[in-house]
Amino acid sequence: MAVAWHSAMSHHPPYYLVSISPKRFTHRLVMESGEFVVNFMPGEMGELVAAMGGCSGSDLDKFTTFGIEACPGSQVSAPVLKDAFAAYECRVIDRHTYGDHDLFMGEILAVQYEPSAYTEGLLLDLDRNRPILYMGADYYSTGGQGVRLDREKLVGAALARRP
Amino acid sequence: MAVAWHSAMSHHPPYYLVSISPKRFTHRLVMESGEFVVNFMPGEMGELVAAMGGCSGSDLDKFTTFGIEACPGSQVSAPVLKDAFAAYECRVIDRHTYGDHDLFMGEILAVQYEPSAYTEGLLLDLDRNRPILYMGADYYSTGGQGVRLDREKLVGAALARRP
Repeated sequence: MAVAWHSAMSHHPPYYLVSISPKRFTHRLVMESGEFVVNFMPGEMGELVAAMGGCSGSDLDKFTTFGIEACPGSQVSAPVLKDAFAAYECRVIDRHTYGDHDLFMGEILAVQYEPSAYTEGLLLDLDRNRPILYMGADYYSTGGQGVRLDREKLVGAALARRP
Repeated sequence: MAVAWHSAMSHHPPYYLVSISPKRFTHRLVMESGEFVVNFMPGEMGELVAAMGGCSGSDLDKFTTFGIEACPGSQVSAPVLKDAFAAYECRVIDRHTYGDHDLFMGEILAVQYEPSAYTEGLLLDLDRNRPILYMGADYYSTGGQGVRLDREKLVGAALARRP
């Protein structure tokens, strides 16, 4: 599925969370397997991501219908997509129901990534790879140009200006 | 503080979560008040957001140091920033420690937003307002151009192509 609500949670150990409605086919898969993989997709795959959000695995096989290439993760059997620039292989360590969604907390057991999508400092290289952003309804965007803002210098400048 | 890890969680009732390290000054404020406001900042405020992430409220008063205009929320006393294009006023309904961060689950009690930043359909108008994205370390970006991808049509096209 195309998950709109997700976030990192902890550095050590590395945790990542997803929010999934119990109405979704994926919810059952995650409940049964106790695993999920978060696949981060590049801007060029926008149409595929949108299509993933427009149909359910209970109605059709998304892999064959959309020609998606994937293989099981190294630590989990959930799929890592060939076109993802990064994939977090997660084991569910906790689940809570909040309103109409369930929060699945995942421990990241393995990370796969495409080195060319990142800088040497392991930041996303936005000149070469702009991740997809979901804006709601049928609207999408990607990350824009990257800019360095020196936090320490900005704070120092404000302190120097202070009366 | 500038919070990097946050997500919507539920439509009904509306819940929003933030992940905050117990090391942060804000952690104490949220623990004591049982409230927080998520202020969504426009791209032009990148330097202010970066500076917020580069210092701690335990060392200085961020409001006076950076000349931040704010007022209490309508439902909570935590601050709504004048320059935010949207603000979610939240009451903490749950907290869990996961690794080195705490997850605070907030019920959204009120939303304030700048109508000119949104389309008539209440989507962000990316032609006029591009939200800040935090990319890690000292790197930032904003949302790029918006694009409409008709999910239903994309699924229909794939099904029609299916052998």
